[in-house]
Amino acid sequence: MLKGYTLPLTPKGTSSLAPMPPWHYVGTCLAIEYEADPDAVASFLPPGLEFHSPQCAVYFSDWQYASETGEEYLDPIRSQYHEMILLISAAFQGNPCAYCPLIWADQDVALMRGLIQGWPKQIGSIWITRSFDLPSKAGPLVGPGGKFGATLAVKDRRLAEATVTLREQVSQLPTPNFARAVNIRHFPELAAGRHDCPAVHELVQLKSRDVQISPIWKGEASLQFFDHPYLELPSLCPVKVGAGYRFSCALTVDDLTLLRDLRSK
Amino acid sequence: MLKGYTLPLTPKGTSSLAPMPPWHYVGTCLAIEYEADPDAVASFLPPGLEFHSPQCAVYFSDWQYASETGEEYLDPIRSQYHEMILLISAAFQGNPCAYCPLIWADQDVALMRGLIQGWPKQIGSIWITRSFDLPSKAGPLVGPGGKFGATLAVKDRRLAEATVTLREQVSQLPTPNFARAVNIRHFPELAAGRHDCPAVHELVQLKSRDVQISPIWKGEASLQFFDHPYLELPSLCPVKVGAGYRFSCALTVDDLTLLRDLRSK
Amino acid sequence: MLKGYTLPLTPKGTSSLAPMPPWHYVGTCLAIEYEADPDAVASFLPPGLEFHSPQCAVYFSDWQYASETGEEYLDPIRSQYHEMILLISAAFQGNPCAYCPLIWADQDVALMRGLIQGWPKQIGSIWITRSFDLPSKAGPLVGPGGKFGATLAVKDRRLAEATVTLREQVSQLPTPNFARAVNIRHFPELAAGRHDCPAVHELVQLKSRDVQISPIWKGEASLQFFDHPYLELPSLCPVKVGAGYRFSCALTVDDLTLLRDLRSK
Amino acid sequence: MLKGYTLPLTPKGTSSLAPMPPWHYVGTCLAIEYEADPDAVASFLPPGLEFHSPQCAVYFSDWQYASETGEEYLDPIRSQYHEMILLISAAFQGNPCAYCPLIWADQDVALMRGLIQGWPKQIGSIWITRSFDLPSKAGPLVGPGGKFGATLAVKDRRLAEATVTLREQVSQLPTPNFARAVNIRHFPELAAGRHDCPAVHELVQLKSRDVQISPIWKGEASLQFFDHPYLELPSLCPVKVGAGYRFSCALTVDDLTLLRDLRSK
Repeated sequence: MLKGYTLPLTPKGTSSLAPMPPWHYVGTCLAIEYEADPDAVASFLPPGLEFHSPQCAVYFSDWQYASETGEEYLDPIRSQYHEMILLISAAFQGNPCAYCPLIWADQDVALMRGLIQGWPKQIGSIWITRSFDLPSKAGPLVGPGGKFGATLAVKDRRLAEATVTLREQVSQLPTPNFARAVNIRHFPELAAGRHDCPAVHELVQLKSRDVQISPIWKGEASLQFFDHPYLELPSLCPVKVGAGYRFSCALTVDDLTLLRDLRSK
Repeated sequence: MLKGYTLPLTPKGTSSLAPMPPWHYVGTCLAIEYEADPDAVASFLPPGLEFHSPQCAVYFSDWQYASETGEEYLDPIRSQYHEMILLISAAFQGNPCAYCPLIWADQDVALMRGLIQGWPKQIGSIWITRSFDLPSKAGPLVGPGGKFGATLAVKDRRLAEATVTLREQVSQLPTPNFARAVNIRHFPELAAGRHDCPAVHELVQLKSRDVQISPIWKGEASLQFFDHPYLELPSLCPVKVGAGYRFSCALTVDDLTLLRDLRSK
Repeated sequence: MLKGYTLPLTPKGTSSLAPMPPWHYVGTCLAIEYEADPDAVASFLPPGLEFHSPQCAVYFSDWQYASETGEEYLDPIRSQYHEMILLISAAFQGNPCAYCPLIWADQDVALMRGLIQGWPKQIGSIWITRSFDLPSKAGPLVGPGGKFGATLAVKDRRLAEATVTLREQVSQLPTPNFARAVNIRHFPELAAGRHDCPAVHELVQLKSRDVQISPIWKGEASLQFFDHPYLELPSLCPVKVGAGYRFSCALTVDDLTLLRDLRSK
Repeated sequence: MLKGYTLPLTPKGTSSLAPMPPWHYVGTCLAIEYEADPDAVASFLPPGLEFHSPQCAVYFSDWQYASETGEEYLDPIRSQYHEMILLISAAFQGNPCAYCPLIWADQDVALMRGLIQGWPKQIGSIWITRSFDLPSKAGPLVGPGGKFGATLAVKDRRLAEATVTLREQVSQLPTPNFARAVNIRHFPELAAGRHDCPAVHELVQLKSRDVQISPIWKGEASLQFFDHPYLELPSLCPVKVGAGYRFSCALTVDDLTLLRDLRSK
């Protein structure tokens, strides 16, 4: 009997790209709040979500992951990855929520776990300034004046650049936030005549548990999206850049809430 | 309204990781026929397929891809990728067929198109000797004595090495062949309590059209799989290595045949 | 006793990044002739070379390499690499020659062999359309109307894009040509006070032997350089784009001619 | 006039792979002390150094770099890299020192700065467990019991794996240490007949200033080198593994001491 949570399914089940949940994550985020054009934001919302506000946020994140028993972080090429998450504001049945129209990560295992949660992941190249807690011209300290940068490139084209200069500790995370974000789970059909009738097409809400947040630093930010011939990130480019944030978080994922099946009957 | 064949779904639909089929492919394959342990082969077969023989084949392939109108090959980072395909022999309702237990590719777009066809793709690093049609110590000619090598590595560990020395042109492709291979399409659930009840779990058979094959070269081969802590390729290691092949092929994919829904009711 | 042609020097001498010459190369080039601003071209010339014309050429090349006894092409990750070579026109003591101000390659072994020949190599990401000699929407044929593309990116920013549409076979290679190009060999000092006094700083002319050239295809071309915050390729951007070319070549390198020691006495 | 500290030399001098020193570094090291076979250690020593002891150390390091005015860490793909440094024990004129026979890094700019200091760098893939200072199954805390892993692969083959479990803070850095290590600066000739007469071949000792060290954690370690067909790291494999360490450090490099010119007269 074949075993495994995702393909490949194999006799021992240890070859799956993503193992059975729970999935444990810990990482550091550099986030920037901004406003996009309200019509653009509305145009990216899926059926079932209403426009709420033009408020968006990007998260450049440095993650480490492990399965329940895997200790993958000791073979860190299996565990570490970077991500750039774009969240826009929305509402579901009148309740504000975040929706993710675009996201990039730099490892296949992150891509697969993402698809299962409805994150529309593609492979990208994400780089984020690190702090090493020693004063040096080669890096910032986590404290007032500490300056961090981050970049996103996809298939050899740079798509986004951001900087954040820390000013003060705050108690509030950026908005919108990825904690209970809404995604679309989607898996298409290939049989002739059914290319428009996905096998899976549903609005879902993320669930996480055992969430922990480090002290949160806030400051001023810059954010720029660059033109691209086919990726639509520039449609959601900043018209007004807000605050920047830096914080670490840990969380565990092993559940998901179905909001609505979007398949036409 | 959001458009796109796969995630991400966006207003213009140009951001999808995989665009709407048809998908056009052209590439060169270095293939090695071999026999694995029959019990091992049987243990990798999914429900619905019967054991047929211990005959296996690996294909190291150098692909270029384009969508119907995309001309992606002119921006070749969008179009080119390498693949290592493992096929084992099986039978469906008494008819011999190929089944793919493991496959690696080096681009996210190939991974996504693969998942939709049931190819259990993961990202790997595949390298294949090229011929440049000029006599040189730096490369083989496509002709008697021309020697080609290929390697597969996954997450910084080498998994397979092969060589093929061409001897003669033949009219027969290697067996098993990927033309009408059988795969499992699979997309899991994440909602608590449903981790064992995939949303999609079906036995499918590949379809392709407009297939063209170059002259086929055949010769002797070597093939070696290396130990790995969790990937199960070594379970299907060669007990007897057969012939090697080199050929190019072109094909178009926009259909798939459902053989059986494997979900338990 | 330590052995090796380059660092690292080791007991067996098999760890050197570049082994003892001769070095054998075979590859395919997509080349575009163009004119840059004459003042810009002149400003990139080193001492010892005079301005000759504003004629430039870029070569996007797909290489395979082997040492005298190494058969590195059978472990192709050791052997294959891509390159983007920029050549500008110059004259040495009244004789026209090519000079290379900028070049990128995607393997460390190519970078090291390059530095030894005075190629000012950096690591870049180069992609070039391939032909697989089968009619397909996924790739061109080598013949009239065959359309090829190539791109260069460096550290996640795209720097150059080119296309060539083949029209006819010709007997003339593009100009300027890399066969006997002039380079600067350069190795700096780090001791305090000597940062401006390189240990090696000399004008050299490339030598190659056993050169073979495939049929040469010529046609029309497009070429574009993109802005960059610190790399100076855009200073040599096209003001007029000429013809495009595609050809393969093989050559062997194990010698070099010193033209002039550029160190101040 | 062309400017720049290394190739390429250009009108503005901003294209050089490595800019003019000083070079500022900050990073975190995971280090393992071990003993190799004494004859093997002796066989790797260059002329001018005497055998001192079989004590070796490997450093897996996560670096961030900036030039004097460059703030490269805000465009982190220019600044961040990983390294695996092997140091063996030696003595120069009776004084114990460290010597580096082999080292791998994952960025071209690190490779070039390294060659100038005599580090025998090649490109490799280095991964190191990170701590994010939050309790999680996905990563260790920096404290008693915190377990870190690191791996090295070169050209798709894994060469080394290590783990360190932290136990206590100590005041002593591992031995041998890279602070004042001895290297060979080396730049070969390519002119026919001079392949054995390098242009630069000298024993040098590293200098650094403004060194800062974080608290140092020490614990037990594991370390394994894997067989390789041509890289000689396995010759220096552990016969006895000692303690493991984790610490951060910052330092500035803009000088070097020449110990001896090794060129034969």
